[in-house]
Amino acid sequence: MPTHRRYAVLTEGFIADRHAKTAFGVMRYGRDKVVAVIDSTAAGSHVDDLHPHVRCSAPIVSSVADALSFQPTSLLIGVANAGGFLPPAFRARVLDAIDARLEIVSGLHEFLADDPEFSGRAKLSGAQFWDVRRPPEPIPIFSGAAYRVPQVVVLAVGSDCAIGKMSVMLELERAGRAAGARPEFVATGQTGIMIAGSGIAVDRVISDFVTGAAEQLVTNVATDTDITLVEGQGALHHPAYGPVTLGLMYGSAPDLLVLCHRAGQQSIEDFDVPIPALRDLARDHEQLLARVKPARCVAIALNTSDLNEQDALEAIAAAELDTGLPADDVVRNGADKLWNAISRAAEETAKRQRAS
Amino acid sequence: MPTHRRYAVLTEGFIADRHAKTAFGVMRYGRDKVVAVIDSTAAGSHVDDLHPHVRCSAPIVSSVADALSFQPTSLLIGVANAGGFLPPAFRARVLDAIDARLEIVSGLHEFLADDPEFSGRAKLSGAQFWDVRRPPEPIPIFSGAAYRVPQVVVLAVGSDCAIGKMSVMLELERAGRAAGARPEFVATGQTGIMIAGSGIAVDRVISDFVTGAAEQLVTNVATDTDITLVEGQGALHHPAYGPVTLGLMYGSAPDLLVLCHRAGQQSIEDFDVPIPALRDLARDHEQLLARVKPARCVAIALNTSDLNEQDALEAIAAAELDTGLPADDVVRNGADKLWNAISRAAEETAKRQRAS
Repeated sequence: MPTHRRYAVLTEGFIADRHAKTAFGVMRYGRDKVVAVIDSTAAGSHVDDLHPHVRCSAPIVSSVADALSFQPTSLLIGVANAGGFLPPAFRARVLDAIDARLEIVSGLHEFLADDPEFSGRAKLSGAQFWDVRRPPEPIPIFSGAAYRVPQVVVLAVGSDCAIGKMSVMLELERAGRAAGARPEFVATGQTGIMIAGSGIAVDRVISDFVTGAAEQLVTNVATDTDITLVEGQGALHHPAYGPVTLGLMYGSAPDLLVLCHRAGQQSIEDFDVPIPALRDLARDHEQLLARVKPARCVAIALNTSDLNEQDALEAIAAAELDTGLPADDVVRNGADKLWNAISRAAEETAKRQRAS
Repeated sequence: MPTHRRYAVLTEGFIADRHAKTAFGVMRYGRDKVVAVIDSTAAGSHVDDLHPHVRCSAPIVSSVADALSFQPTSLLIGVANAGGFLPPAFRARVLDAIDARLEIVSGLHEFLADDPEFSGRAKLSGAQFWDVRRPPEPIPIFSGAAYRVPQVVVLAVGSDCAIGKMSVMLELERAGRAAGARPEFVATGQTGIMIAGSGIAVDRVISDFVTGAAEQLVTNVATDTDITLVEGQGALHHPAYGPVTLGLMYGSAPDLLVLCHRAGQQSIEDFDVPIPALRDLARDHEQLLARVKPARCVAIALNTSDLNEQDALEAIAAAELDTGLPADDVVRNGADKLWNAISRAAEETAKRQRAS
């Protein structure tokens, strides 16, 4: 594995599409550089011509051969489609990348290293695979070691899936570093793992081991970290994915919670499950954790991307009034305000832990 | 797969051991007949000589060859050890059973069908494998179909693992059938699956799919079932296994809950997590489910196996006083009392569902 990856991102036919969100996440937040995008449907332009909000100036080229002049170390599969399988148009380009000895990085459900054609060709060239969703083995059963980490652990929880929990923690990490602290983002899903360069896709772990996986993540942070920022998954009240959320709540053993919510959303997508008032939602999480290992909700992260500036301000004020906690949209306004709240709460937590 | 299995149960060296609990569960509650036990350390005696509470008179023999005279269809691996691997002394006997074309039934974590020596020999004899812990594929994502089943669904929840949740539901099924109802026990763990002949070991399912697995189980009960009795797993407040429990709570979408507890137990085994008062524990489950799909706790199943008769009676009375719900030890006293409570609550539920 390269120490610093230089990514050629394969989005063939999807660069204009929302399924390229894996690519955009890595471009916007990744620690590794995106040196080129391979997509013949937009070759000749640059990413920021099409997607200014992604803040990436990489050139778009039409082939792996063209991308090689930008000296990539790795080919990143830049899509996350519903079935999690490789789009047919990608196959020939992945083979080209294997022949060029690029590392192949994929977050698909289908593991590319297990594909006989790919693995056969990789044997010849020496190319490596990183299927980021493949859980490490063995994952131990949860032991309680997470209760004894020296860091203050903060977990993102939320009212639904796909409301920006990952972005919230990445923005908080950025704000914390700018403020001179040593926060570490801990990735628990495929895009987060590509951004951070490590992590475990907890939704892919056998259910008996999901708490053990979360525990392993928080016990393995860099020793000089002071605040661990754990990416959230799912939602406690989500009928399909609630158990994954609870796995993070118990396994990462947070001290503090950041509650994430899309402003105005009334019920969980695809299910007739109403989202409670934010103060009740915060209390539900706190009450459940109080039985096992207490944690306190200290900030509300609102996603106001559907609202105009004025409505966003009002939604933020309403969330503060409802919960008595600081609220903000960290993508729209930066994360300084919420970072300050977390940082203060973390200091109190650390003081209490030292005293006990 | 045989329609009615006749089991030769392999416990070689473990018949006196608590690790043989898989064997005892199948003997005591199984729908399939145990015709012989293979264990050279106790050959010549019968199971009820050693373990009268198991209520099984099968002869103990020293080899697969000796067991064949009782015409078994299947060899059952009768142990559940910690690592979930095959004890070394079992290998030669499994090979003998494969050569005799017996079906090999195992609840180990290690799948026997994936063992090259076993599968190679089975190819020659035509023997089949049933690794009961292997999840069926594909398991769909939870869809909400569980909300629309015609049965009343009852889920066992509890204060800890290994307190007898499976036995409670099996005793309730027995009492319900004796009362002329049509309950169906739904197995969610390895021993339960062997007893029932079908089911899914939900703790072995990838966490994203655990609710879908539970949903599949309750949507697949026999159509003439009136009350579905879902075997519980883990405990909501268990730091390691709580997510598996929540998977059953959301995925099987129960109408009613039976709360199981070992009388006198103060905290979750191996963890410093106090068990709350039973009324609080019942309310915790109800409050969480109220956000998603409401369910009501209607009975307390106490395990009083550590107590004498008088202390057991007092513990049951105390549980009733604490919760205002009927309580009993269904293994000690039979399940009629709790079955009646569940049956009444189920009638109310069914009436309400018809009205809405």
